[in-house]
Amino acid sequence: MRSVAIVGATGVVGQQFVVALQKHPWFKIAKLAASQRSAGKTYEEALRRENGALAWFCDEEPDPEVLRMKVEDAATLNVDDCDLVFTALESDQALLLEPKYAKKKPVISTASAFRYEPDVPIIVPGVNNEHVELLSRQKESRGWNGFITPIPNCTTTGLVITLKPIYDRFGINRVLMTSMQAVSGAGRSPGVLALDILDNVIPYIPKEEEKVQTETLKILGKLGSKGIEIAPFKVSCTCTRVNVKDGHTESVFVSAKKTLTVEAVKEAMSDAGKELKELGLPSAPTRMIYVLDDPFRPQPRLDRNREDGMATTVGRIRLDDALENGVKYVLVSHNTKMGAAKGAVLVGELLEVKGFLT
Amino acid sequence: MRSVAIVGATGVVGQQFVVALQKHPWFKIAKLAASQRSAGKTYEEALRRENGALAWFCDEEPDPEVLRMKVEDAATLNVDDCDLVFTALESDQALLLEPKYAKKKPVISTASAFRYEPDVPIIVPGVNNEHVELLSRQKESRGWNGFITPIPNCTTTGLVITLKPIYDRFGINRVLMTSMQAVSGAGRSPGVLALDILDNVIPYIPKEEEKVQTETLKILGKLGSKGIEIAPFKVSCTCTRVNVKDGHTESVFVSAKKTLTVEAVKEAMSDAGKELKELGLPSAPTRMIYVLDDPFRPQPRLDRNREDGMATTVGRIRLDDALENGVKYVLVSHNTKMGAAKGAVLVGELLEVKGFLT
Amino acid sequence: MRSVAIVGATGVVGQQFVVALQKHPWFKIAKLAASQRSAGKTYEEALRRENGALAWFCDEEPDPEVLRMKVEDAATLNVDDCDLVFTALESDQALLLEPKYAKKKPVISTASAFRYEPDVPIIVPGVNNEHVELLSRQKESRGWNGFITPIPNCTTTGLVITLKPIYDRFGINRVLMTSMQAVSGAGRSPGVLALDILDNVIPYIPKEEEKVQTETLKILGKLGSKGIEIAPFKVSCTCTRVNVKDGHTESVFVSAKKTLTVEAVKEAMSDAGKELKELGLPSAPTRMIYVLDDPFRPQPRLDRNREDGMATTVGRIRLDDALENGVKYVLVSHNTKMGAAKGAVLVGELLEVKGFLT
Amino acid sequence: MRSVAIVGATGVVGQQFVVALQKHPWFKIAKLAASQRSAGKTYEEALRRENGALAWFCDEEPDPEVLRMKVEDAATLNVDDCDLVFTALESDQALLLEPKYAKKKPVISTASAFRYEPDVPIIVPGVNNEHVELLSRQKESRGWNGFITPIPNCTTTGLVITLKPIYDRFGINRVLMTSMQAVSGAGRSPGVLALDILDNVIPYIPKEEEKVQTETLKILGKLGSKGIEIAPFKVSCTCTRVNVKDGHTESVFVSAKKTLTVEAVKEAMSDAGKELKELGLPSAPTRMIYVLDDPFRPQPRLDRNREDGMATTVGRIRLDDALENGVKYVLVSHNTKMGAAKGAVLVGELLEVKGFLT
Repeated sequence: MRSVAIVGATGVVGQQFVVALQKHPWFKIAKLAASQRSAGKTYEEALRRENGALAWFCDEEPDPEVLRMKVEDAATLNVDDCDLVFTALESDQALLLEPKYAKKKPVISTASAFRYEPDVPIIVPGVNNEHVELLSRQKESRGWNGFITPIPNCTTTGLVITLKPIYDRFGINRVLMTSMQAVSGAGRSPGVLALDILDNVIPYIPKEEEKVQTETLKILGKLGSKGIEIAPFKVSCTCTRVNVKDGHTESVFVSAKKTLTVEAVKEAMSDAGKELKELGLPSAPTRMIYVLDDPFRPQPRLDRNREDGMATTVGRIRLDDALENGVKYVLVSHNTKMGAAKGAVLVGELLEVKGFLT
Repeated sequence: MRSVAIVGATGVVGQQFVVALQKHPWFKIAKLAASQRSAGKTYEEALRRENGALAWFCDEEPDPEVLRMKVEDAATLNVDDCDLVFTALESDQALLLEPKYAKKKPVISTASAFRYEPDVPIIVPGVNNEHVELLSRQKESRGWNGFITPIPNCTTTGLVITLKPIYDRFGINRVLMTSMQAVSGAGRSPGVLALDILDNVIPYIPKEEEKVQTETLKILGKLGSKGIEIAPFKVSCTCTRVNVKDGHTESVFVSAKKTLTVEAVKEAMSDAGKELKELGLPSAPTRMIYVLDDPFRPQPRLDRNREDGMATTVGRIRLDDALENGVKYVLVSHNTKMGAAKGAVLVGELLEVKGFLT
Repeated sequence: MRSVAIVGATGVVGQQFVVALQKHPWFKIAKLAASQRSAGKTYEEALRRENGALAWFCDEEPDPEVLRMKVEDAATLNVDDCDLVFTALESDQALLLEPKYAKKKPVISTASAFRYEPDVPIIVPGVNNEHVELLSRQKESRGWNGFITPIPNCTTTGLVITLKPIYDRFGINRVLMTSMQAVSGAGRSPGVLALDILDNVIPYIPKEEEKVQTETLKILGKLGSKGIEIAPFKVSCTCTRVNVKDGHTESVFVSAKKTLTVEAVKEAMSDAGKELKELGLPSAPTRMIYVLDDPFRPQPRLDRNREDGMATTVGRIRLDDALENGVKYVLVSHNTKMGAAKGAVLVGELLEVKGFLT
Repeated sequence: MRSVAIVGATGVVGQQFVVALQKHPWFKIAKLAASQRSAGKTYEEALRRENGALAWFCDEEPDPEVLRMKVEDAATLNVDDCDLVFTALESDQALLLEPKYAKKKPVISTASAFRYEPDVPIIVPGVNNEHVELLSRQKESRGWNGFITPIPNCTTTGLVITLKPIYDRFGINRVLMTSMQAVSGAGRSPGVLALDILDNVIPYIPKEEEKVQTETLKILGKLGSKGIEIAPFKVSCTCTRVNVKDGHTESVFVSAKKTLTVEAVKEAMSDAGKELKELGLPSAPTRMIYVLDDPFRPQPRLDRNREDGMATTVGRIRLDDALENGVKYVLVSHNTKMGAAKGAVLVGELLEVKGFLT
């Protein structure tokens, strides 16, 4: 069993890490860290509200054993006894603390702080496993014993998972995507007010579109001797917020390089990530993409929890004659499962089998 | 004052016609018609439920005078004394009844039944006023004293209004649109169940995408000697339903023929429909398009009621480098006002000033 | 294994019966029946929509084996080979068909048709198990080999479960209850329109209040030699609909006969249904009532699924000084689990151990 | 024209004051005050967000003239030139600042800080106009030139308006109320998160129930020589939050002192506040209470805006045989109109005609 630390453990994403790790067959939660305010308390005390209830936001309950663990101060956390650090920090804190941990140990981060550094890969297991090699160079160039590897923005995740099989088989010229994102993607502070989203759509999520565009091309890029060459196509997004609790829906239009058929795209997607399955990663879905024929699917409420939120569901695959070699489809991806903590745990599992945790 | 008939007066769209017409300066409600079940009752009796309440679905109240009118049987309605007939019928009924009325009088329809006939224009005032000329040919070729002129699908309306200024100034190669449509668009029978849309997005609306694609090109087409030549570009849509009561939101990506700038597009849109204003039509908005700079706008709840739902609101205008001469934006259009009955009344007003009601 | 029939199998409640029974350790689905329209088709064919998708409304998937079963015509269903019939019928159909089945076999019904007959008990396991004896008299007086036993209205269920421990320990003078009911309680035809409930509360559900008032007193009544003497207290309800998918919330005010304390009420509720657990019924929750101290609970979304929807959650227990010996609390009960098909299956299990299925 | 100041002018309630006052026939907005952060800026600048848009939360637009006014620092505001001060402050700020203003001028407050002081009335025009007399004593005993008069909690407002006619005509023994409150009642910081209320009911609003209980009895109390004798009956509430934007719904059960009939209660309610109308207050509704016979009403979305949110709508009036001389009903009251700023403006109007502003 690897000993892992969860940093930012009291927040929503930190709690999702606890859920994803507390019964994990390979990883054992060895340390919990949070802000100074929580340091010295048990995890339970740190989550306790004035009214006596737990400020706990996951559907799954925390293990009593985890609740009894002492929370340490993230700023002074000693990771020597850990094999791996999962961080759920705001960007400014990530910028400050993640390098401290990475000097000693591997760090898997949900923050965007390091995503755009040239020596930092954004790994989506089943999409760009080979990018893990960049971590060796990162360690070397930075003189660290560990490294930082962030997961992508939750809206990028479903997009790259579904683009990958198209890209591999047909090539891509351009992608135009409109997202309808769930409110849980905005977290709790401040999050999305009911007042603002009730009977409404909000057509803008600050910085989201730039992230999706940049990350998609990096993830689908090729790792060469000079680092990752970003994928040579164009991505354009409009990201909106809708009144859905969990599960991002994305309407995607793709112009491919080669002629394609609906059947060929379905087949390519249905086959996606087969090699992932063979690696035997405990958090991996048995199928990365489920393609549904019912035109009324995918729907976030009905499809987000497929394979505990680790599978992406695709529907409405049709040819698009407004684009050259065009195809269009709709996807649903669980933004707080595959798109956040549990997706990060899957990266940890990939790193384990690739020998990056020793 | 012109005497008008409302056919299908007891339904939701019929009620919207009542609201749009009951205080109209040019048109007077002379007849109300509905199914045989309502015939012979007063309008109030026809709307009365078992529990004694009115089955009335508009925010505005019906005039007492209208409530006292007798409802006639649509199947046997005599339109001789009317100058104009507004119909709010299901497609199969429209197919049957509208030609009967049109033999004698002008018919403005919210149904799709005749939209795709070559001698039938789909008029959006301020966008393709010149298509009214096709009505003369229709009368002649069909040997009718009147004619049928349907309004477009409610999702088409906002799209063509915003595409028109781009098309005129920059030309268009292709349009890719994803809609997030309000539940009122589906009406009441069966309509959208709360069970299905709560915490959800439904990624499919039967026949909607085909309608929007076909109608857009017809509306933006050129009326020539052989009829309407459809506009020579491509339109591709994905139409979804979201948990919003009124107001369709559309995320639009356009590839233009000529280079454009954000400022030039804003200006073109802000200027749209100036000639409409000059016609002095009572239901016309003072501006067809409002362009907002706040990136969090347009939002359906905040923007749908602008100019009593007759104006279209646009925001998030940005260049799109994934498309040649690309521009992208988001629009909100009120699906049950400009997109339905009140939009049809505006067509009636245009026909009046163009001399088609005499 | 008992062989059971599900009548009305293609509807929403029928599907919930399939889910509750397809892996049941004691009961085996032997027959599926529905309207003539479905008769002769496999269950899968009967559920198939024009677009090829299944009209399936439960979160759990149907077993392939069940999908391959032939659906029979409910009107001519032969129940000779069944040990038990579960019905999910509209009231008028129930009135017609249930006696036909009951002449031969036990019938457990979700319809209200027979609930108010003097020789018909409304059994809520853990609340009034002893009422099963009335079934012997029903068989005898009607000359049937079987009997009809309906479950209560879904709003009654949580109310009687939580009143029972108060009634037993402190007596009850009066109960005033306001419900906030989920949209799934209205089913799918017509169900609740999104248009009507979005940003809204509907303060009336036809016939609901009378049902809750009458059923509560019957369920908590005493079975004597002349039948059930209804409980000698008063119940008054206002039943409303809110924009929640599943889970009825009820705000309850009780005036007891004896002095009570918050602690004593908590204890009484927490102990409720202990004898039920000892019977070893497979669908029974391990605890009938969970009492939460967090004042922000119970909440339908967070608490409805406790013990797969078979447990009732109570919170906000406070003394109420506006009533004599007053206590007030809020409960959440899952209307389509304990309140519908799975609650009916629990009745079947109780009848089994009480020897009523032989 | 009276010159009025709005303190806390940049917040949500402050903005509602601007809307309620900017076209007021008797009052002129002379000063706007807010925190030091806004002081010295124009109102428009103070509302401006980083992205350039206005942080404006009312449906009605602010007048350009108001947008150009300079905002002053509430802490140092000189009210010498004002006739009246409206405050929209958090409770701790109200405690500090309102007495400073009240030493010189009348203060009408939306905060709860002074509501429970014995020399402070809580005035609801049309319900307890005569309590204004307590203000004279307050001035005298405190040695102030002005006074503080707070409006009640928004949930109290609809309750006392509907109880008053019952109390006057039939007397009251006890009241049991369950509220279903709108999310706007919680404001914007932090307000209610979409995450928490979507598909949900929250059964607790901190301090709300105590406020409603205490305020109701004070408002319906009798002003005697020793101050207000609170009304001699019992009130018990459970206050919940539902997914509604505006408009509080309350389910009320009343035990009266005398026998009553549904017709008599309807009549009493329909007649309520006649004297208010005669005073000619510009913000007063023409009828305080609308009684609807349709059992599906009142609904917050359909009824909250009646008379611009200043009227209370009641429905479902039925006798209640679980209480002695029992009657039950449902009410809808607009929490941010009659229940907040515009309700406070109505108090100002009442004070004007009663001669308290000179």
